Amino acid sequence: MTDHTTGSVHTEIEQIIAALEHGKYKRVRKMLHQMHHAKIAGLLEVLDPEQRLAVWQQVDSGHEARILAHLNPALGRHLVSESGDHASHQEEEAESEESSAATQIREVRGALAQGKLKRVGKILRDMHPAKAAGLLESLPPKERVAAWGMVEADRAGKVLTYLHGESCAALALEMDHEDLVIAAERLDLDDLVDLIQALPDENGQQLMRATYGRRREKLESMLSYPEDSAGGLMNADQIVVRPDVRLATVLGYLRLIKSLPVQTDMLMVVDRKGIYQGVLRLSALVTAKPEFKVAEVMETELPVIAVTTSSDEVARLFQDHDLLSAPVVDENGLLLGRITVDDVVDLIRESSDRAMMHMAGLDEEADMFAPVLTSSRRRAVWLGINLVTAFLAAWVIGLFQTTLERVVALAVLMPIVASMGGIAGSQTLTLVIRGMALGQVGGSNARALLAKEIGIALLNGLLWAVVVALLAVAWFGDWQIGGVIGAAILINLLFAALAGLVVPMVLDRMGIDPALAGGVILTTVTDVIGFFAFLGLASIVL
Amino acid sequence: MTDHTTGSVHTEIEQIIAALEHGKYKRVRKMLHQMHHAKIAGLLEVLDPEQRLAVWQQVDSGHEARILAHLNPALGRHLVSESGDHASHQEEEAESEESSAATQIREVRGALAQGKLKRVGKILRDMHPAKAAGLLESLPPKERVAAWGMVEADRAGKVLTYLHGESCAALALEMDHEDLVIAAERLDLDDLVDLIQALPDENGQQLMRATYGRRREKLESMLSYPEDSAGGLMNADQIVVRPDVRLATVLGYLRLIKSLPVQTDMLMVVDRKGIYQGVLRLSALVTAKPEFKVAEVMETELPVIAVTTSSDEVARLFQDHDLLSAPVVDENGLLLGRITVDDVVDLIRESSDRAMMHMAGLDEEADMFAPVLTSSRRRAVWLGINLVTAFLAAWVIGLFQTTLERVVALAVLMPIVASMGGIAGSQTLTLVIRGMALGQVGGSNARALLAKEIGIALLNGLLWAVVVALLAVAWFGDWQIGGVIGAAILINLLFAALAGLVVPMVLDRMGIDPALAGGVILTTVTDVIGFFAFLGLASIVL
Repeated sequence: MTDHTTGSVHTEIEQIIAALEHGKYKRVRKMLHQMHHAKIAGLLEVLDPEQRLAVWQQVDSGHEARILAHLNPALGRHLVSESGDHASHQEEEAESEESSAATQIREVRGALAQGKLKRVGKILRDMHPAKAAGLLESLPPKERVAAWGMVEADRAGKVLTYLHGESCAALALEMDHEDLVIAAERLDLDDLVDLIQALPDENGQQLMRATYGRRREKLESMLSYPEDSAGGLMNADQIVVRPDVRLATVLGYLRLIKSLPVQTDMLMVVDRKGIYQGVLRLSALVTAKPEFKVAEVMETELPVIAVTTSSDEVARLFQDHDLLSAPVVDENGLLLGRITVDDVVDLIRESSDRAMMHMAGLDEEADMFAPVLTSSRRRAVWLGINLVTAFLAAWVIGLFQTTLERVVALAVLMPIVASMGGIAGSQTLTLVIRGMALGQVGGSNARALLAKEIGIALLNGLLWAVVVALLAVAWFGDWQIGGVIGAAILINLLFAALAGLVVPMVLDRMGIDPALAGGVILTTVTDVIGFFAFLGLASIVL
Repeated sequence: MTDHTTGSVHTEIEQIIAALEHGKYKRVRKMLHQMHHAKIAGLLEVLDPEQRLAVWQQVDSGHEARILAHLNPALGRHLVSESGDHASHQEEEAESEESSAATQIREVRGALAQGKLKRVGKILRDMHPAKAAGLLESLPPKERVAAWGMVEADRAGKVLTYLHGESCAALALEMDHEDLVIAAERLDLDDLVDLIQALPDENGQQLMRATYGRRREKLESMLSYPEDSAGGLMNADQIVVRPDVRLATVLGYLRLIKSLPVQTDMLMVVDRKGIYQGVLRLSALVTAKPEFKVAEVMETELPVIAVTTSSDEVARLFQDHDLLSAPVVDENGLLLGRITVDDVVDLIRESSDRAMMHMAGLDEEADMFAPVLTSSRRRAVWLGINLVTAFLAAWVIGLFQTTLERVVALAVLMPIVASMGGIAGSQTLTLVIRGMALGQVGGSNARALLAKEIGIALLNGLLWAVVVALLAVAWFGDWQIGGVIGAAILINLLFAALAGLVVPMVLDRMGIDPALAGGVILTTVTDVIGFFAFLGLASIVL
């Protein structure tokens, strides 16, 4: 070796060691990829055992044999046995697709703990991108970054699209810019739009500037629509045909383009100006006689989605009409793109996730393993809001301190009244929130629903008033306390039913998500009314 | 008129009046359908004004003119103007598809209140069955039955499939048996299976016995699988082809059968014995050269669903692989049917509905307008369970009665400790329940998640301990109370985080839905620990 080469190896060693220390496995792999096998073997011999194993983990399995040929045989055997990749081959086979998510998580965490990154890479490579994304989100941050390093750049884009907002942005930013651009190039436009929207503004812009020509144009137009509108959901990969051509011609054209975009169940029919005319289902195309014209077999009844339609409305249309895809048009009827059911499925899952998470004051895009400080800050807001309402309830109790001093049994029983009201109210609240989401609860039937809920509150209020009163009498041997708590429970359940219906409806009208704020306001109402009724009645009666 | 005829008219009048009184509009319409126009005119003239209008509402619009021809002209004009159907024609046009669900509910309720049943029928007829089902569920029971009477028998089946379990069964039982059979005949097999499963056993059996031949066989085989398995979801309407035929032959065959079942995006490829070989996508069929054989262009990589697969797993497969449909096979690989994405979409919506409803102790199949007594009984169970836990918390408070007697401020502040713990705990609980549903939380990463949640609880506990302590000191001017409540809040938040993670995981291992029982158990823990820590510390310190 000349001095020059040796110098170069040293520099590369330094670079590789630095990359290893920062967990930038992708960079290590890329550097190894550009080196000659013999050079890698030399590098491995120079490194200390731990670094050697770490570098070996990044070697492509296809290149292993060639590198081993240049390597000190003892060292080679040692590496092969240490890395444990081949030894456990059979074991891996047994798991494969069938193994449950929990097993896979355990597997990956075990491999990470032992530094067997190749193993991690193999597991992730064998998984569907959606599963891989789920698995990555199940890992604590450091392990997640390490595992992410083992995802090939050409698959990384697809995996990113299955991640939730926060983890998606974090992992995308872990990648080298050029790798991210490569990953982005392989994405469908609608997935790319999601990715850009998940990233911080600056990085999103960078990614957009890396696209060219027609793709850039389409991308810019798609990004100009709000994320939660038909425009943000659509893809511009539709195949269009003219109404006046024969089906035989269409078939000829399709055989020419050789493959259709995924999730294509219909072609779009447009006129010369691109104005939407109807759709030609593939099922019509294959069943109708080839001499028919498109206009004769196309369907014109299909719901057409305006680009400004809200994503909730889009989801409802797909569900109601059992659509697989639908055309999106602008205000002039110009066909802009299509929405496919796979995106709608994600939308539906997300929107119900959102309702559930919002009810606990959580954000559905947040990373389960976000840094403790970030999560704490987010949740602190919710606890702070709750504290205000808790002090309100405490203040009500404070009004009756003298009564409490006289009869301490009241302090013991007090939480029961508040708790029963809270539970009853949250049942009504949940029913109404869900009904509103289905579009089944509104101003027009609110009164009928209120009558029903009040009826239920009355029956259950009477039932539990008697039960609690008897229990209280048995406990404290005081009939008056029993009467007071019974009355308070009945009152609280009635108000709980009223609040459970009115609170979400008012919030909805104010444009506030009832799932987010409804629960807090409801329990405030039931706490305040429960304590007020119970202690107020007690201070009069006792 | 002969006596005989008159007698017959009387009988019919009596029958019609009886049917009207019971709200059996469908029967009225059927009887009118079988009568001669002149006879109906005669009948109308005999009835008193109110009954006359009610009967008129049931006359087919197509037959109105002919009946009017036989009717006393003054009476005719009166009926036409009274029924108000034509007068408001323009108004109706304006609403049409665009009008919001709320407007339609108001519209239908208004028309029902005025007895304008034809109007109701027209509105429902113009709606998609899914929308009509949603509208029916939004109506209180009596109005619902009246509106249901106006749904044509041939559309009724489709509407039934969009209703939730309880309302579906109730409305199906409102129908005459023969109408129900007609409605059922027009249903796809998978929808019919759902309907039969929603009905009481006996009625379901009746409906099954009304099918014949191949359909009956398929139906029985589908009903033999559990409702929440792939077998319960599948439909047996797939088109099958052999692997060794040319695409041109397939196209010829398809042109012969003229139309494909809805939601067909692929044909199934089976061998002579019906064993699944692969799928032939329509998109491959239209893009490949017709001289290719099916085996050359068929796809074999597609996930194949075993008939015993759980519906949750089916939903995950569809989501992960963006499927539009998928083959269902038995243990020997025999093709049994296919599952289509529209059913999966319903499944996903239902399963997330279920989580949300279960968290409030509600049943997602229950009718929003179920009779008050039924609803009360159901919810009473949940309130009863909650009462036990509330008494547990009260019992803890009772342990410290002497302390409470000495320092009544404790009673005032006590709910704050419990409430903060409950909120913090439910945040962790919701995160974990959702993570478990996504398959992202399990034994393998529980410890990492626990460490993170404890970290958050520590930070937020310290923050809010200080804030609440300062507020308590400011309120009661007692530093010791401040110290006690601060310490209690910190302790409760730590235990809340622990319980939020452990409770759902233990419930899940025990086979209990964590969404159903998790919240109640969690708040019991945070109440008991909150009161115990706060009052216990106070009894030592104060």
